[in-house]
Amino acid sequence: MPTLQLPAQPVIAIVGVGAVGGYYGAKLIRAGHDVHLLLRSDYQAVRAGGIRVQSEIEQGFSIPPDQLKIYRDPGDLPKPDLVLIALKATGNGAYESLIGPMLKDDTILLTIQNGLGNEDQLADLFGEERVVGGMAFVCIHRTAPGVIHHIDHGFVKVGDYIRPGRPSAQPVPRVEQIADLFRSSGVRCDVLDDLRRGRWEKLVWNIPFNGLGAVLDLATDRLLSTDAGMTLVRQLMQEAIAIAAAEGVSLPADTIERQVTHTATMGAYLSSMQVDRRAGRALEIEAILGEPLRRAQLLNIATPALATIYQMARLIDPAASM
Amino acid sequence: MPTLQLPAQPVIAIVGVGAVGGYYGAKLIRAGHDVHLLLRSDYQAVRAGGIRVQSEIEQGFSIPPDQLKIYRDPGDLPKPDLVLIALKATGNGAYESLIGPMLKDDTILLTIQNGLGNEDQLADLFGEERVVGGMAFVCIHRTAPGVIHHIDHGFVKVGDYIRPGRPSAQPVPRVEQIADLFRSSGVRCDVLDDLRRGRWEKLVWNIPFNGLGAVLDLATDRLLSTDAGMTLVRQLMQEAIAIAAAEGVSLPADTIERQVTHTATMGAYLSSMQVDRRAGRALEIEAILGEPLRRAQLLNIATPALATIYQMARLIDPAASM
Repeated sequence: MPTLQLPAQPVIAIVGVGAVGGYYGAKLIRAGHDVHLLLRSDYQAVRAGGIRVQSEIEQGFSIPPDQLKIYRDPGDLPKPDLVLIALKATGNGAYESLIGPMLKDDTILLTIQNGLGNEDQLADLFGEERVVGGMAFVCIHRTAPGVIHHIDHGFVKVGDYIRPGRPSAQPVPRVEQIADLFRSSGVRCDVLDDLRRGRWEKLVWNIPFNGLGAVLDLATDRLLSTDAGMTLVRQLMQEAIAIAAAEGVSLPADTIERQVTHTATMGAYLSSMQVDRRAGRALEIEAILGEPLRRAQLLNIATPALATIYQMARLIDPAASM
Repeated sequence: MPTLQLPAQPVIAIVGVGAVGGYYGAKLIRAGHDVHLLLRSDYQAVRAGGIRVQSEIEQGFSIPPDQLKIYRDPGDLPKPDLVLIALKATGNGAYESLIGPMLKDDTILLTIQNGLGNEDQLADLFGEERVVGGMAFVCIHRTAPGVIHHIDHGFVKVGDYIRPGRPSAQPVPRVEQIADLFRSSGVRCDVLDDLRRGRWEKLVWNIPFNGLGAVLDLATDRLLSTDAGMTLVRQLMQEAIAIAAAEGVSLPADTIERQVTHTATMGAYLSSMQVDRRAGRALEIEAILGEPLRRAQLLNIATPALATIYQMARLIDPAASM
């Protein structure tokens, strides 16, 4: 199967123009790329006011409305070479209706969503040869439509999609091309030899700190401030590492201690799932907790703490009582 | 070993004059029994204002200060025939200093505290021949020193102590004597053939509703309002039943469905541990969650949800950050 590549000046579509999609989209536009934004609820507000990025660590900037190409209907966009998908993972049920109408035969799909299973869903729907995965390491909130408050970090990691159970791929040119797109817009971007390893490394953090953070409504510093909290965090990390290992992704022995030590430097950090809970929004439970749990069950890996936290997160999910 | 008995007009000491100790103590005093109260932090207030019981379901009443026999030092009480222990189980470290000085050779000890292990601790300290266990089924709060707000229920179950692993005892006369004391003061009291069965039946309820109630700060109706909540409640009940079975206490097959159905009739009920959490007080974690978990571990019973909830409760315990 020939690997799909990007042209030199790709047409880029962004699906999901919230905090993450808006932030990277605005940076790509500012750098002169041909970016087309698909919006739903925020369409009118962004049409009127453009996109504004406020940042605590870098220069803020705005993209005025007349420099934006925005659309409400996915059939109206020019067929993109690359679709950057930054939906909340709770919205993946809309993949087909949002992405399907804009595809041409060689459109590449890059998901930078949270959690596990997004690439698999895209591959099932649209063909695995199109799919590239990425992770955004960024602390960011959308404070109003088109208004993005950037708190810290911002780098991206991208890697080619590999079906679970297959051997690791070598980086392919399209992944380097995508990384160059980010770099050309001022965003650090690393290329992953093994996307699955990257995903699991991030999950080792996300499972305890998003899971416990949302369920207990506690920031990272509180989770790490007691023996009981440390015990739970380490156990959830250990369970994530065990699932990863059963999937063929072996993480280094010091992963837990490195992540705990790094997190202790972050102060009172609220995970995205805790922020969503406080805002009364749907939680990314399936992508961050449910899908890893289902993999564990398929592979016969005992994950007692993850199983319990998953049910508790479903129990407190604001979407459950909507 | 001859079984200790009560005299016809026993001298009764009450250790722990909070909501539960104050409520039953006041009823025993009102009925004319010879009751001596050991107080610590509330001593001055009760000395000045007596005890007042307000109730939503029965006639309220007061015991004025001049009808109370109250003490600050356990060495000052007349040696009691019966000690009624109603401390919070988080205060069991004080058993020796509070109870030791008041004992004579044939003093009987009745604990009506929450959770598992209280009788064992008393037996270890003072001799198992003295120990009787009981449970108070009462919804009650102490709103100020000596002021008790009684919401619902009030009956007591008592049974003779049996060491874990020993066969069930038959009710002995002293247990009937104690039950008559409660009955004579207007409190329904059942005699348990098997104290352990009674304890485990109560734990099957307490583990999910106190555990999840405190950790998630959710009342019973919210815990039962979603599939995820029902799954967790049932799993925790199943784990409790499995530990009980390993200890030789076989609970009926319909225990879970009966308790869930009954709880659904209770409305938005806040468990005592949830109330303690909201009030910033120490939680009875070890008695209700920790001791059952340790029994499970000794007996090699898998209790993944209980183990996780236990750590989460320790994590949010107000006493952990005192």
